[in-house]
Amino acid sequence: MTQPNLAAYSEKQVLVTGGLGFMGFNLVRALQEVNARLSILSRSWPERPGSVESILAGVTFFKGDVRDPTVVDEAVIGCDVIFHLAGKSGSIASNASPLDDLDVNSRGMLTLLESCRRLNPSTKIVFPSSRLVYGTNAKLPATEATPTAPLSVYGIHKLAAEQYLLLYQRLYGVRASVLRITNPYGPFQSPEQNRYGIVNWFVHEAMHDRALTVYGKGAQLRDYVHVDDVVDAMLLAGVAPEADGRIFNVGSGRGVSFLAMAEHIIRSAGRGRVKHVEWPPNAALVETGDFVADTSLIGECLGWKAAIPLESGLEDVIAGYGKLME
Amino acid sequence: MTQPNLAAYSEKQVLVTGGLGFMGFNLVRALQEVNARLSILSRSWPERPGSVESILAGVTFFKGDVRDPTVVDEAVIGCDVIFHLAGKSGSIASNASPLDDLDVNSRGMLTLLESCRRLNPSTKIVFPSSRLVYGTNAKLPATEATPTAPLSVYGIHKLAAEQYLLLYQRLYGVRASVLRITNPYGPFQSPEQNRYGIVNWFVHEAMHDRALTVYGKGAQLRDYVHVDDVVDAMLLAGVAPEADGRIFNVGSGRGVSFLAMAEHIIRSAGRGRVKHVEWPPNAALVETGDFVADTSLIGECLGWKAAIPLESGLEDVIAGYGKLME
Repeated sequence: MTQPNLAAYSEKQVLVTGGLGFMGFNLVRALQEVNARLSILSRSWPERPGSVESILAGVTFFKGDVRDPTVVDEAVIGCDVIFHLAGKSGSIASNASPLDDLDVNSRGMLTLLESCRRLNPSTKIVFPSSRLVYGTNAKLPATEATPTAPLSVYGIHKLAAEQYLLLYQRLYGVRASVLRITNPYGPFQSPEQNRYGIVNWFVHEAMHDRALTVYGKGAQLRDYVHVDDVVDAMLLAGVAPEADGRIFNVGSGRGVSFLAMAEHIIRSAGRGRVKHVEWPPNAALVETGDFVADTSLIGECLGWKAAIPLESGLEDVIAGYGKLME
Repeated sequence: MTQPNLAAYSEKQVLVTGGLGFMGFNLVRALQEVNARLSILSRSWPERPGSVESILAGVTFFKGDVRDPTVVDEAVIGCDVIFHLAGKSGSIASNASPLDDLDVNSRGMLTLLESCRRLNPSTKIVFPSSRLVYGTNAKLPATEATPTAPLSVYGIHKLAAEQYLLLYQRLYGVRASVLRITNPYGPFQSPEQNRYGIVNWFVHEAMHDRALTVYGKGAQLRDYVHVDDVVDAMLLAGVAPEADGRIFNVGSGRGVSFLAMAEHIIRSAGRGRVKHVEWPPNAALVETGDFVADTSLIGECLGWKAAIPLESGLEDVIAGYGKLME
């Protein structure tokens, strides 16, 4: 295996749906660094510091919803690589509003695929799936062959989206790579998205010297992965033919207890405190138990491995957050 | 294991969605024989011989679409058992119109589940899934543990529906049984539904002395199961607590080549002929290869086993069809 060459992006037209969200914006920054010709499909222009507009200079902006075939048709034409990040996240939210999750995530995915089939069937799609497709009691670390058994409508629709992608590759040649991401965290979390990812939420709470709510003892292991590592995996998957038609776990491969993560944030921030509470029933029902990803498959295929340790990754996020507060 | 007692249905309020379709109507007849209090949710009153209206005397009729929460709410209240048969079938059709399949099958299923959660969370739902959730090259006969890998949007949505059901049982206590049915055939195929199931279609064509189109050599094995056997499995699953939260294969357990099935129909009908043609690309893409179900799980749990051999089953269907033509 040789590491795919990211210099190839300088020749590529790339679309990022949901390109102004947490993961999307980090990806967009990285795509700018590799000189991709960039477009973003998003429902709204960001409410961010003014600097964003200059950052996004040169980016083509499609304002619209991923469920609207008219704007999606326009956006996919001519794209070499599409990162499909638009969607709705959250297990608990999806169980509370299953029809919304179906509409945004499943209908959105099929709308994009139908546009590609009709207008750009040789494109490549990279899709962030989730560790939440796996059920409880997986043998750890979990490989991609671990049985899937989602505990939420969100997880069910991620799994359906994976299957749509593999099907469209089989039927129409639309190439696809699926990344099952563990628990991502990192910078460019916008305030209006503060529920994306518990780590980012905890950083936010600690920096405001508030309580970090831990359900039960917080002993459950999680695999926290820095968004820069995730973005690297996405970039590699976007240009490596070896990644076509494949599903990869993307995580740190290291299990850290929920409580240890919270305590590390508090230590690094010098603020905040842990508050233990009983498990709320809706959270207990979607709790997967310990999870750690086996990432050897993406290592073998694409030469990817998470590079940022949780400790230094968190410190960087906290330092960045501190600057924003100044 | 003791065979569940179907006499229990005389105490039950039962809803059949899609109760006027091929499988639904066969099920409704059987539920009448066990004296269930019956209601049907269907989009339209059947275009059938007048006798149907007297057959359906005493049945409560909800006219509406399974995607309409208002009528679904009304229909689920007070039901002990719900057989959810409303939906759109067909692999090739689903690949041609994936968003339609999503809307009817996935949104329909979630709408029903949401009504049950809100208004009748202790009800029991029996759902006909399909062998089409399995992919190609399964080890045969295929057990329920065979990896799923649908070759069609239809199969993907069947799998998602299975997962919704298991999730709603876990989250809200709505009990569910899933039957992965192989290739059903039988009487009460209405003329406007003549594409439901290739066997019924072939009977129809043979009785009109037309050509039965076989793709390639027709050597692929199929597991043909008589709808009376399927209905028995549904009835058992509806009242057996052992079936709650379970997924069962429902098939004959016997592999018969596609060509042999066609030839048997022609012999029994004394009409029709085989016509071999090249595989059309859209059919080749969804072709699963040989399939035979292992049905030992439902045998162990519910004491069910297919009882009707293909040969005599086909002869009965053909005799019934002949009477209709008189």
